Amino acid sequence: MPKKVDHEARRLEIAEALWRIASTRGLDGVSLRDVAAEADISLGRLQHYFRTKDEMLVFALRHINVLADRRIRERIDAVVSDLDEEPPPRTVLRECLAGMLPLDDKSRVGTLVGAAYFARAVHDERLRAEAREGIPKLAEFFAGLLRRAMERGEVSADRDPDDEAMLLISLVDGLTAYTLLEVHTPERALSLLDLHMARLFGR
Amino acid sequence: MPKKVDHEARRLEIAEALWRIASTRGLDGVSLRDVAAEADISLGRLQHYFRTKDEMLVFALRHINVLADRRIRERIDAVVSDLDEEPPPRTVLRECLAGMLPLDDKSRVGTLVGAAYFARAVHDERLRAEAREGIPKLAEFFAGLLRRAMERGEVSADRDPDDEAMLLISLVDGLTAYTLLEVHTPERALSLLDLHMARLFGR
Repeated sequence: MPKKVDHEARRLEIAEALWRIASTRGLDGVSLRDVAAEADISLGRLQHYFRTKDEMLVFALRHINVLADRRIRERIDAVVSDLDEEPPPRTVLRECLAGMLPLDDKSRVGTLVGAAYFARAVHDERLRAEAREGIPKLAEFFAGLLRRAMERGEVSADRDPDDEAMLLISLVDGLTAYTLLEVHTPERALSLLDLHMARLFGR
Repeated sequence: MPKKVDHEARRLEIAEALWRIASTRGLDGVSLRDVAAEADISLGRLQHYFRTKDEMLVFALRHINVLADRRIRERIDAVVSDLDEEPPPRTVLRECLAGMLPLDDKSRVGTLVGAAYFARAVHDERLRAEAREGIPKLAEFFAGLLRRAMERGEVSADRDPDDEAMLLISLVDGLTAYTLLEVHTPERALSLLDLHMARLFGR
């Protein structure tokens, strides 16, 4: 294996050990040593790949987002039958938002890593940078879809796409939190999202 | 001081030490010993009041909710001039929801303790019980206000008060998270909440 690929592969293995801990007992009080033990490597070896817990957490979060993107793309491809046509913006938006909810084991792990990230990032300026960069990008992407939907007459022209995008992201974030806390089921979270979407799209 | 009052007063002092830690560096990896040091008492003395970190966290969370309730009640009293009249349900709902956002230092500490609670509760069945009991009660209270608003013709009769209540709570939760992550300002969070409210109340 070329050296660079090997390096990335090792980092991924370590990230996966971190996910396993995040999805079972959480990352509160977890040390680099704990992650090394879970990955079955020495602490020194782990530190060759990640110097700090936060560096590891951001890597794990980014990679989990890449995997989520891939899953969402597959879901969109599955529902859009004719690949030559532009997929309806509503479909893309709905699949993206549904993909952010903990509806199955894979997305559940993603949201649990997200919860661990959130708890640390509120107290860590460098960790917050990840959200401050990523969320506006996501909001911009959603606003673009909403603008397209408005051009197609599917969303009322008096809506502000940027406001609506941030409302959707915030709503999904809260629905996710209450799913993880078992206040409601994943199915209920999805149906509430669909209710909000139906109103946004005027039906 | 009577013994019971004294016991509660000591527990409050310890909870305040926990809040100070929660609002500065967070509770990740914080031990009972750390809280005892912050409260300037011995570990043994702290354990006389709280046996575990979780017990302390739930107490701190409940008390912070009591304080938030009090602040919200004061805000409602301040905007409702004639105390003989029923306060408009929209006003009560809006002040409650705004009071849940981190708009000032006090509510900010509350949401930071909430964030620490969230990170632990997703992995702890007993801690989740707190949310599983509290959130449906809050949702029921909000649904009652929405029902009253529907009777007054202020909310369309085709809305489901239980769904709308949970949408509002989830939205505020997400808006709070992105405020703490500095993705948007507290003012932006409030204006997005007001936008959603304006739509719910049909203007």
